[in-house]
Amino acid sequence: MSVFEIIGSIAFAISGSMLAIKKEMDLFGILILGIVTSVGGGAIRDIVIGNTPPAMFQNPKCTVISSITAIVVFLIWKLYNRNTIAEKIARRTDNMYHNLLFWSDTLGLAAFTILGMEATISFLHTDQCLLIAFVGLITGVGGGILRDLLAGEIPYVLQKHIYATACIFGIAGYYVLYHFIPESIAALIGFCLILVVRYLAKQFEWNLPR
Amino acid sequence: MSVFEIIGSIAFAISGSMLAIKKEMDLFGILILGIVTSVGGGAIRDIVIGNTPPAMFQNPKCTVISSITAIVVFLIWKLYNRNTIAEKIARRTDNMYHNLLFWSDTLGLAAFTILGMEATISFLHTDQCLLIAFVGLITGVGGGILRDLLAGEIPYVLQKHIYATACIFGIAGYYVLYHFIPESIAALIGFCLILVVRYLAKQFEWNLPR
Amino acid sequence: MSVFEIIGSIAFAISGSMLAIKKEMDLFGILILGIVTSVGGGAIRDIVIGNTPPAMFQNPKCTVISSITAIVVFLIWKLYNRNTIAEKIARRTDNMYHNLLFWSDTLGLAAFTILGMEATISFLHTDQCLLIAFVGLITGVGGGILRDLLAGEIPYVLQKHIYATACIFGIAGYYVLYHFIPESIAALIGFCLILVVRYLAKQFEWNLPR
Repeated sequence: MSVFEIIGSIAFAISGSMLAIKKEMDLFGILILGIVTSVGGGAIRDIVIGNTPPAMFQNPKCTVISSITAIVVFLIWKLYNRNTIAEKIARRTDNMYHNLLFWSDTLGLAAFTILGMEATISFLHTDQCLLIAFVGLITGVGGGILRDLLAGEIPYVLQKHIYATACIFGIAGYYVLYHFIPESIAALIGFCLILVVRYLAKQFEWNLPR
Repeated sequence: MSVFEIIGSIAFAISGSMLAIKKEMDLFGILILGIVTSVGGGAIRDIVIGNTPPAMFQNPKCTVISSITAIVVFLIWKLYNRNTIAEKIARRTDNMYHNLLFWSDTLGLAAFTILGMEATISFLHTDQCLLIAFVGLITGVGGGILRDLLAGEIPYVLQKHIYATACIFGIAGYYVLYHFIPESIAALIGFCLILVVRYLAKQFEWNLPR
Repeated sequence: MSVFEIIGSIAFAISGSMLAIKKEMDLFGILILGIVTSVGGGAIRDIVIGNTPPAMFQNPKCTVISSITAIVVFLIWKLYNRNTIAEKIARRTDNMYHNLLFWSDTLGLAAFTILGMEATISFLHTDQCLLIAFVGLITGVGGGILRDLLAGEIPYVLQKHIYATACIFGIAGYYVLYHFIPESIAALIGFCLILVVRYLAKQFEWNLPR
């Protein structure tokens, strides 16, 4: 299990369970939404490239990690809420909530995009640019789309354009670089590109015409 | 075609067509939602385990059964509604409606969970606990999730935790028992376990913290 | 790339980007919804028949065509909106909007239904009526269902019964005819049948009981 898988699983489990809490689901709903967000992208990827049954269904690690993460998120939230006193704190919490959601979502997106590209290259032994990019994109955004659909929301990816745009920067960076430098360094650079582009887009409120 | 398939198809077709009626769809929408709920779980299962094209697309039996069921539900509802007079009856209908929805959904869930596990074991010749459990769970809840998403509702499985919990009891029971006793008896016990756990959970209103 | 693929891709990209505009998404959301609607049906079809990775992920043509279409739709809409003056025009626009949506959706539905049947026959070398019909139906309605789910709407196919009914007429026509006459002519007749049935149903407001 690679570092990216661990980062991605934890991050997406956090974002899934936080959305479930916001939707006032119970502990089990929180668990399921956390696991689905974590496992979803990889499962869609494996079905798309024909690697069935999906690897994540055979390896308990990812499921265990995301389950523990979801439970920890639930406990922290319970603890935190009990100690909350004034409205002032509530407002700060709200800000923290959005920041944590943003970063967990971004980390998961970045990690699974790179993982999707790696899996496509190694499983299909292909170098087709479009195919690799497509599967990378789907792996990255898939977990979040499932999460949002199950929670009854319009997927984030359709509302925040920088979501997918950041992905495309990372995909292009990784694809170009892995031909020239060691694969793991190319992966790291692609991963960071996604984080940086999304952070900058948020910070400077880059917008596209509507 | 096994008994479980017949029970599951009829039960899920009832739950799908009842939701379509509630959403004021016309006869065709009722038919489609009934068929999708019946066929959906098995189709997802076959795609996940790589048994393509899905068996249910090649065998008309399941489609025919669920179509007939959906039409019968529509006719009964039409007939019943015509005869309804007082509000008192309406209230009793409402109760009946929820009970029927609960039992059709529970029977479909139980039947397709077991069917999903059986198909995984026989198609992949595997004994991997996690894989079998995952595919069983997806087969059981898949039809209902498709039904709820298409009808614009947050899936039942995320709101009623006992939904998936009951499934897990049945899965564990079947998985442990089929190593020791005849497969068909293990399947029956797993099936009944899901029914019983879900009924008890509903009856005694077991709840998890929110 | 066949004529049907070009027609279907353009038509579905129009319907997807128009819905995205209505939902007030930005340029990127419009692009994504346009592409997903175009590529979605074919991708689902390939996953269902086991032709992985889906052909559309390897061939940039469809993606390029639908991207250009989505951008053109966006530009025309921007241009048109700037020139709109009176309410009278707005009302006519509204009518035009619904007509354009209806026709783009119908053309995409017809084209992809036929393409789905052709792909099933040639990829699986099968003549099984139900399988071919099922995959054709899923290919035809799949893109639109993904579009509607992602945009947070109850799928069109469940609300307008003639949607799927028209499909079934075309499927039956194509399936019967391609045994006797050249495949391309059978495809054209099936395609036209879907257009005609849907147009007539809309024109004369054929309805099913609710």
